[in-house]
Amino acid sequence: MTASIAVFGSAFNPPSLGHKSVLERLQHFDRVLLLPSYAHAWGKEMLDYNARCELVAAFIDDLDLPNLELSRLEQEMAIGNEPITTFAVLTELQVQMPDVEFTFVVGPDNFLNFSKFYKSTEILNQWQVLACPETVNVRSTQIRDNIVNRRSISHLTTQKVARMLEDRNRYSFRKIDKR
Amino acid sequence: MTASIAVFGSAFNPPSLGHKSVLERLQHFDRVLLLPSYAHAWGKEMLDYNARCELVAAFIDDLDLPNLELSRLEQEMAIGNEPITTFAVLTELQVQMPDVEFTFVVGPDNFLNFSKFYKSTEILNQWQVLACPETVNVRSTQIRDNIVNRRSISHLTTQKVARMLEDRNRYSFRKIDKR
Repeated sequence: MTASIAVFGSAFNPPSLGHKSVLERLQHFDRVLLLPSYAHAWGKEMLDYNARCELVAAFIDDLDLPNLELSRLEQEMAIGNEPITTFAVLTELQVQMPDVEFTFVVGPDNFLNFSKFYKSTEILNQWQVLACPETVNVRSTQIRDNIVNRRSISHLTTQKVARMLEDRNRYSFRKIDKR
Repeated sequence: MTASIAVFGSAFNPPSLGHKSVLERLQHFDRVLLLPSYAHAWGKEMLDYNARCELVAAFIDDLDLPNLELSRLEQEMAIGNEPITTFAVLTELQVQMPDVEFTFVVGPDNFLNFSKFYKSTEILNQWQVLACPETVNVRSTQIRDNIVNRRSISHLTTQKVARMLEDRNRYSFRKIDKR
């Protein structure tokens, strides 16, 4: 049987219980790669890439799902601060693992706007694209808002992630929320 | 682990190697339901429902994939010749199997037009929707054309299906291709 790998790209800025609700529905894949985006395609300011990778690693520790892995592929592929497209990510993964069937996972919003993705038709002709409902409606922006306004975030993300985010020097969201 | 079932609805008019190429990519699901559409939503003329179900059963026999099943759900749900919507199918399946996670499978064309589906947003909020590439570009229309023009179809569908379609009294496509 061909190995199946789901590719879940997101800013993870920071990881939330919304992300968790998506990942829980991907248990039938052999592996699920969590890819923090290296530079956000729409120029959104966000936490440093390494800080987000640390948070994702802690998030994976917190979730009791055996098939999750952090992938730093976007950093490996990056040239300067150019955004990495989904098409480029899937092409690179397929080169690295030619025998694997990859499924790209998107949230409901990106699904309805999928035709705006770079090379959307080429993506659909080569790979599976899976729209996952967010059965828990928690967004990363809520976590950032709560941090900035010194409200609790323990109901919005997992335990270790919440604890790490208490370190305001390492994980500062001020810049983002000034807009 | 929650059971995962993929729902693959199609006219199957008749089943083709294009369908096969989609089904081969669904091996990581516990079960895959093949649902011949009872009345086509856009009023397309086609083979009798029972004839299409027979062809799908033979098609499943031909494919060496352990998780495929014919589902006659649309017939069970039908009221007169009203088309059955995807939303109604998924709602009914979820009632019958409340603990299962369902994934609705669409081809690349339907994916980019998904917003036109009845209650598309409600579907995306409750279920996974998977776009599958047709890595083998064979369409049912080609099979119908070849039958009408007395050309071979053995390279376009599986063995048993091709043999069954030789029975022109049972499987007649004349009406469709007169358009």
